[in-house]
Amino acid sequence: MLGRQYEGQDCSIARSLEVVGERWTLLVLRDLSFGLSRFDELLQSLGVAPNVLSSRLKRLEEEGLVGREAYQDRPSRWAYHLTDKGRALQPVLFHLAKWGDQFYPSDLGPPRRALHRGCGGEVNNRRVCGSCGETVWFDEIDTVPRGSSVGLN
Amino acid sequence: MLGRQYEGQDCSIARSLEVVGERWTLLVLRDLSFGLSRFDELLQSLGVAPNVLSSRLKRLEEEGLVGREAYQDRPSRWAYHLTDKGRALQPVLFHLAKWGDQFYPSDLGPPRRALHRGCGGEVNNRRVCGSCGETVWFDEIDTVPRGSSVGLN
Repeated sequence: MLGRQYEGQDCSIARSLEVVGERWTLLVLRDLSFGLSRFDELLQSLGVAPNVLSSRLKRLEEEGLVGREAYQDRPSRWAYHLTDKGRALQPVLFHLAKWGDQFYPSDLGPPRRALHRGCGGEVNNRRVCGSCGETVWFDEIDTVPRGSSVGLN
Repeated sequence: MLGRQYEGQDCSIARSLEVVGERWTLLVLRDLSFGLSRFDELLQSLGVAPNVLSSRLKRLEEEGLVGREAYQDRPSRWAYHLTDKGRALQPVLFHLAKWGDQFYPSDLGPPRRALHRGCGGEVNNRRVCGSCGETVWFDEIDTVPRGSSVGLN
């Protein structure tokens, strides 16, 4: 099934979803974009079964969205990171988050804020910085947990 | 399971995926955004089992992303459309399509083109119109099948 779930669809959305449409995959990419890297960190953040996480990471590596390097030898331990191809999904994650913020708001407000790097202004759904008014691209956006002041320096 | 697949995640991305992360759901939204509306049209476009399509549409209606009205009485036939909440996922579909175009290109070129309504220019990944240079919002973008001239008028 994997990778052919939308066979017969001549569509770039379907092709993208064949790679990232599996359960948990976009959340793995989210965690890597937040700076988590070690298998045990991802496991704890996601609360998913280890074999599921392994399988998702393996596929992401095969498809070139994720790279890894050993950070310990015996036993082997790996740290994972997004490649340029993986980072290129940032717009999808950003807009999923903004849509969730808008239509399924948490009582405490958005779990994470999108901030214009170096400026600290809040970036809205249209990628406009509320502080300096610039339209910012995704590589100039830091997302920080609610209540955190990281990125405001 | 439905709707609670990412229980414990304090995250707007996870909340969004609880609603639209199921297999086929984003493609149903895609088809409605392309202007398909009748059950049999969706069925043919997706090549999915009728019970799966019914279940996806039902959930989308319950969550307020999709509305429907009868277009025939006996037997009842329904036409479906996106609500504002459903249309608000347009950015996610747009960027999934652009990512697929970039990293999983088809030999024939992108299956659909994103065009600036009224201008006809090709809209790039950054939502900049290649013809007039304006940054356009999603409600000013028409996507048309490869080879079509619709939207260029």
